Amino acid sequence: MELKAEVRRIGERSREAAYALAGLDSGTKSSALERMADALWRQREEIFLENRKDVEAAREKGLSTAMVDRLTMSEKVMREMTDGVRQVASLHDPVGEIVRMWRRPNGLLVGKMRIPLGVIGIIYESRPNVTADAAALCLKAGNAVILRGGSEAIHSNMVIARVLQESGAEVGIPQGAIQLIPITDRAAVTELLKLEDLVDLIIPRGGEELIRYVAGNSRIPVIKHYKGVCHVFVDQSADPEMAVAICVNAKVQRPGTCNAMETLLVHSAFAESFVPRVVEALRAEKVEIRGCEASRRIVPDLVPAVEDDWYAEYLDLILALKVVDSMEEAVAHIRKYGSLHTESIVTRDLRQAHRFLQMVDSSTVLVNASTRFSDGFQFGLGAEIGISTSKIHAFGPMGHEDLTSTKFIVFGDGQLRT
Amino acid sequence: MELKAEVRRIGERSREAAYALAGLDSGTKSSALERMADALWRQREEIFLENRKDVEAAREKGLSTAMVDRLTMSEKVMREMTDGVRQVASLHDPVGEIVRMWRRPNGLLVGKMRIPLGVIGIIYESRPNVTADAAALCLKAGNAVILRGGSEAIHSNMVIARVLQESGAEVGIPQGAIQLIPITDRAAVTELLKLEDLVDLIIPRGGEELIRYVAGNSRIPVIKHYKGVCHVFVDQSADPEMAVAICVNAKVQRPGTCNAMETLLVHSAFAESFVPRVVEALRAEKVEIRGCEASRRIVPDLVPAVEDDWYAEYLDLILALKVVDSMEEAVAHIRKYGSLHTESIVTRDLRQAHRFLQMVDSSTVLVNASTRFSDGFQFGLGAEIGISTSKIHAFGPMGHEDLTSTKFIVFGDGQLRT
Repeated sequence: MELKAEVRRIGERSREAAYALAGLDSGTKSSALERMADALWRQREEIFLENRKDVEAAREKGLSTAMVDRLTMSEKVMREMTDGVRQVASLHDPVGEIVRMWRRPNGLLVGKMRIPLGVIGIIYESRPNVTADAAALCLKAGNAVILRGGSEAIHSNMVIARVLQESGAEVGIPQGAIQLIPITDRAAVTELLKLEDLVDLIIPRGGEELIRYVAGNSRIPVIKHYKGVCHVFVDQSADPEMAVAICVNAKVQRPGTCNAMETLLVHSAFAESFVPRVVEALRAEKVEIRGCEASRRIVPDLVPAVEDDWYAEYLDLILALKVVDSMEEAVAHIRKYGSLHTESIVTRDLRQAHRFLQMVDSSTVLVNASTRFSDGFQFGLGAEIGISTSKIHAFGPMGHEDLTSTKFIVFGDGQLRT
Repeated sequence: MELKAEVRRIGERSREAAYALAGLDSGTKSSALERMADALWRQREEIFLENRKDVEAAREKGLSTAMVDRLTMSEKVMREMTDGVRQVASLHDPVGEIVRMWRRPNGLLVGKMRIPLGVIGIIYESRPNVTADAAALCLKAGNAVILRGGSEAIHSNMVIARVLQESGAEVGIPQGAIQLIPITDRAAVTELLKLEDLVDLIIPRGGEELIRYVAGNSRIPVIKHYKGVCHVFVDQSADPEMAVAICVNAKVQRPGTCNAMETLLVHSAFAESFVPRVVEALRAEKVEIRGCEASRRIVPDLVPAVEDDWYAEYLDLILALKVVDSMEEAVAHIRKYGSLHTESIVTRDLRQAHRFLQMVDSSTVLVNASTRFSDGFQFGLGAEIGISTSKIHAFGPMGHEDLTSTKFIVFGDGQLRT
């Protein structure tokens, strides 16, 4: 009961703050973000001190080295974090933009004006830098944010949130604009997800298990980013050199990310010559390749792929490889096993490129480029709050503009409806 | 179990159809809609026959006259319905539109292309014409639709859906594009709301009870339209004649609609002269006025307003009236009691107009015009599928463009990520 009331109070403070934030001018928001970046850097020793508590607790609990690494804040991590906040400060302010305006026959001027969403809840795991990243993006778009990080980073998250609050307050950012739920009990998440009258949007950032829990328990709209089972389809007209380079880049440049290629589809008319080349290049980068029957007739020592391989998000130096007889078969495979994240075609045939763009309904569809480009920064959005794999509200990499809505504004001169 | 399997099969057919629909050219969709309108009109006697079964059953069940009226299909209703379908046919096709495209420093061309949402579930009550309206809008935007009308209109809805399917099939619209759930058991709705892997969006259209049920039980994103507690704020600088005309129009032109005014807020500096005038004009239209204390000091025979009146969506010739001391008080009242639907200010003061537009975060904010204009047709959207009162995906009147999403499309020439 106490916990429930506390989470609700946080929500109410956010709602109040959201009204004030919606009216802030762009200059105030930018200078607040600049001050926040300064303060984080100035108070870094204090942050490291708190971070060490989390790191030690994680070691004692026996968390994996990878987990401990992601948790650990260094001067480099801190520099990246403050640079990120400064970059957000320099973005254009989306709020108040009139995206369209038109005149009706009766003289009414009708327009759509960008407005903040209101209150956004971010539920995340592990990396404490999300605390500053997410808070900065929400603030830029005029939203209040409720942060709920993982229990393993609680000390780091709390000190970062406090520094952001204090430095923001100096230029008039309301205290409720950036709040962190200080309760590590998961019941706090469950309560947050019930505040449908106070919170406008929930964005979970983390593993699939977290996202499913949030989506399954929320009465508030959730923007989901499940996983990235990304495909490259090498068409029979592809430039073989370009195709090999794109496949290697998409697989090995950073295999642990959601936009790395997980399955390679090769047109059968091209497979005889291409499969050995691409296998050689990928093996040189230590990629294990699990192939379909047809591919193993060409390169017999591939690991045989099983049904589960087509669904797999390896996030590792492993690749599933399938030979397909047509673009239709490639598209059908992507529809069945894909995750609506990112797919690329390599081709020299304009018609094939055009058809692939039309038929594939993933959030990003590329022609002759690496899947690794599917990213808010790479697309030039200026920042990224996540990658949505569902089509409602936003689809694909989400920037700060996706943290806004639009309202209709209407200027009249006494018009009445007849 | 049988019911569950049947609803799921409907969902699967929709998903299949959605792939085909996404690739249809604009001409095919328009001519399908024209044929549908023709067929509905040609087969109207058959439709009336089925409709009579619903009307008789409704009378036997003792439904209210208003309910029976809404259910009854006449030649006039049929004409409006077919005109509506033809109007949707003539709208521009949003699918495939590239809403923006830009070049990145590495030469990549990155764009956003409008795509259908996929499969849309519409859950509605009473009026059988929604069956054709909603199906037409979904088809125009390239979506498959699953319709679930009220049990009281089951015969009418089934025959309309069948006519749409048959006439669409003649020009190659897949059978699964427009489906009606023929099961009147509410369990069918519950099953539909679980098909998160097959359905992209749910739009409930009906009373608050229906919408709350859908929102509370859906694993699929829901676009809600709860209610319209719309306000007009008459500022002290208002033109009194314009203010009276707008208030009368907003209240009485069609009081049963969600964009009718429910509460009138009057600036205290203007109340002494304005309240008697507006009360007189509204009373001449048989409006009952429930006033706050301050208003009753000016016009003593007003019905005293109680707390519940400020929350009320009367949908009737009743109006709540409150005198406020400032715009801040008006805005605070709207935030506390409003429904984020539509609010209007009447003023001659530019600064007040500007501030009202900024501070009120409802889906439609008007200056010097009747709240009754808050409507997809009046705004020139060409059609309306509903009015969203939550900010995610769409906010305010929703046209066919709001039944689309965008995907990122990227044209490269072998770019790799470094």
